[in-house]
Amino acid sequence: MMKKIVVTLLTDFGLSDPYVGIMKGVIAGIDPSIPVIDISHDIPAQNIYAASYCLKSAYKYFPEGSVHVAVVDPGVGTVRRALAIELASGFLVGPDNGLFSGVLMKDRIKAVVELDNKSYWRTETPSGTFHGRDIFAPVGAHLASGVSLRRIGSEIDPDSIMLLDIPAGVKDGSSISGCIEHVDHFGNLITNIPGDWLTKRSWSVVVADTGIEGGAAYGDAAPGRAVAVIGSHGFLEIAVNGGSAASLLNAGWRMPVQVVLK
Amino acid sequence: MMKKIVVTLLTDFGLSDPYVGIMKGVIAGIDPSIPVIDISHDIPAQNIYAASYCLKSAYKYFPEGSVHVAVVDPGVGTVRRALAIELASGFLVGPDNGLFSGVLMKDRIKAVVELDNKSYWRTETPSGTFHGRDIFAPVGAHLASGVSLRRIGSEIDPDSIMLLDIPAGVKDGSSISGCIEHVDHFGNLITNIPGDWLTKRSWSVVVADTGIEGGAAYGDAAPGRAVAVIGSHGFLEIAVNGGSAASLLNAGWRMPVQVVLK
Amino acid sequence: MMKKIVVTLLTDFGLSDPYVGIMKGVIAGIDPSIPVIDISHDIPAQNIYAASYCLKSAYKYFPEGSVHVAVVDPGVGTVRRALAIELASGFLVGPDNGLFSGVLMKDRIKAVVELDNKSYWRTETPSGTFHGRDIFAPVGAHLASGVSLRRIGSEIDPDSIMLLDIPAGVKDGSSISGCIEHVDHFGNLITNIPGDWLTKRSWSVVVADTGIEGGAAYGDAAPGRAVAVIGSHGFLEIAVNGGSAASLLNAGWRMPVQVVLK
Repeated sequence: MMKKIVVTLLTDFGLSDPYVGIMKGVIAGIDPSIPVIDISHDIPAQNIYAASYCLKSAYKYFPEGSVHVAVVDPGVGTVRRALAIELASGFLVGPDNGLFSGVLMKDRIKAVVELDNKSYWRTETPSGTFHGRDIFAPVGAHLASGVSLRRIGSEIDPDSIMLLDIPAGVKDGSSISGCIEHVDHFGNLITNIPGDWLTKRSWSVVVADTGIEGGAAYGDAAPGRAVAVIGSHGFLEIAVNGGSAASLLNAGWRMPVQVVLK
Repeated sequence: MMKKIVVTLLTDFGLSDPYVGIMKGVIAGIDPSIPVIDISHDIPAQNIYAASYCLKSAYKYFPEGSVHVAVVDPGVGTVRRALAIELASGFLVGPDNGLFSGVLMKDRIKAVVELDNKSYWRTETPSGTFHGRDIFAPVGAHLASGVSLRRIGSEIDPDSIMLLDIPAGVKDGSSISGCIEHVDHFGNLITNIPGDWLTKRSWSVVVADTGIEGGAAYGDAAPGRAVAVIGSHGFLEIAVNGGSAASLLNAGWRMPVQVVLK
Repeated sequence: MMKKIVVTLLTDFGLSDPYVGIMKGVIAGIDPSIPVIDISHDIPAQNIYAASYCLKSAYKYFPEGSVHVAVVDPGVGTVRRALAIELASGFLVGPDNGLFSGVLMKDRIKAVVELDNKSYWRTETPSGTFHGRDIFAPVGAHLASGVSLRRIGSEIDPDSIMLLDIPAGVKDGSSISGCIEHVDHFGNLITNIPGDWLTKRSWSVVVADTGIEGGAAYGDAAPGRAVAVIGSHGFLEIAVNGGSAASLLNAGWRMPVQVVLK
């Protein structure tokens, strides 16, 4: 049996409108046996930074060869290019607007094409407002069905891809600092400081003028109290046992974080 | 290999309760290999007009033969009939309450049955409050598995199906008008005015006492400004580049829209 | 063809973060043909009682052998055990924190293991904060793929499983009382009073100092009025025709309910 290739979807379309279902209908029209997995459809509207973070956090947990279709696309219908990127681990499909920056900080590009072969689109005259349906979903499905990257578009220079300016954590001798890169559903504050920088046995962090002790699990703090842990993505994260760190500390996106090694 | 038939689901059940998962469990109990695709479960509670619009917008993007199970059903357990409708493009399954009006304005009925063959229900004594689980999901799964329409119910007159009174756009010589039929997740205002009525090179619209220029893509307006485009469903749509037209124009459902041809 | 075994997922992760998609990616990495069905991901954060209710309501509608992976896990990374439970109807996988109490009030345990065989985990060094990804999802996928319960862990005493203190309805001669166990998306109030206790032809209920007549369907009350019905799970439920009983009666979780037999 041929191993099925997974298509993942990441958008800012929400789930109240039929847009996500329509993309899945288009994929099913190409091959209804392709497994389609939602990464998220609740990216804040047109927030390319949030989409980049979400995709970077998720893509490596999918099987090799997976095709990640990401559509957060404020420039839809304008001159921005449409891309498919081949990595060692799989494929990325979406607009050339910086969306793939997070992934591309971690993974090397094998090849990139601009999507200009209309025979793999749903229609040769795509809507000016919904390339997810007319270009990205069908191209993703064709890639998952085994069509080669070179057939779906014309190769372009990887260095021409648009990249966002995403701040990285800073390690300068024993000084470690960074910022909050994401606030999740639980109110956990996820930073850009890699956990493997915290090799000392004991450390704490300062965020929003508050000192917080390091631990190994959320439950290492008393109920209602904050704790700093190495989160599941391998980065320093501030959480509250049974509560929301974002609320308790009144902290959010891009706020600075300082590590104190003991 | 037999081509798999897709079942789609459209409800007002939301995703916080287990109701949608239960319907999928019932379908999996009949055949776990049936692909099930969510169109939306966030239809406003018991809003048949919104459900009709959503289904009309989505159904044509699914592969031929797809079975669309729609359950927005304020009359569940009362005398309203339960239906399965065969179209050229696939099947509709749900209550006879007007839910299918949008689809039936576009597509011709081949046959309709009232669901009275209890051997295709989950139980011969269905709950008075959850026909999605006990009647509509299992009937949809059986249709997708190849059971014929005539076996699952008794044929009835297509003209007896309940239809909603849905206003259409009006074209009277060079005067084109209509109303807002849907406000989506982005705050885009989708009208009932077909895009192919706008054949002149240049046009604008007036909505909520505001004149808005026509364009081809959301990005054709300056950031934060409104633009009128032919949306992805083929109807006139008012959007804001990087924002919400519903908020900016304080506009919503059923508000009149006038086209100005130049 | 081998009958496919379904994996269901129940969490409090929400759908805005990639956590649920990541769990599905891990399952697809083990076998992308396993059907995965969401029961709900909108359990209120860390609310084990709500999770227990939701799973109890849903699990019996899935095909025999289904594997239910439930992750509402405030103690993740601490000493609480990780379990897999075999029932006649299928399997339960998740933390030993009371999450399975509702199911275990209805169904007999055939065997239980503590998940200590790391060869069925995603990694031998799991994150201290995301056992859904590293332990529960992969173990669920292996069970669905046919790995036996005894291989994935060490058998433990079923009586050692943590159970929540969940109030049951009370029948004392002709006096029947209970409480509201769940408020659903529609504002329906679902009680812990079994419908089969209401064998008299005529009955009403009192909740929040309001008397409400019994009926068979939501539509048996006038629009905007409350009605008491036997809900789809087989328990007494108070609803409002075209509205929310929770709002109209200002009623919620654990509020007492008294039945009046006539």
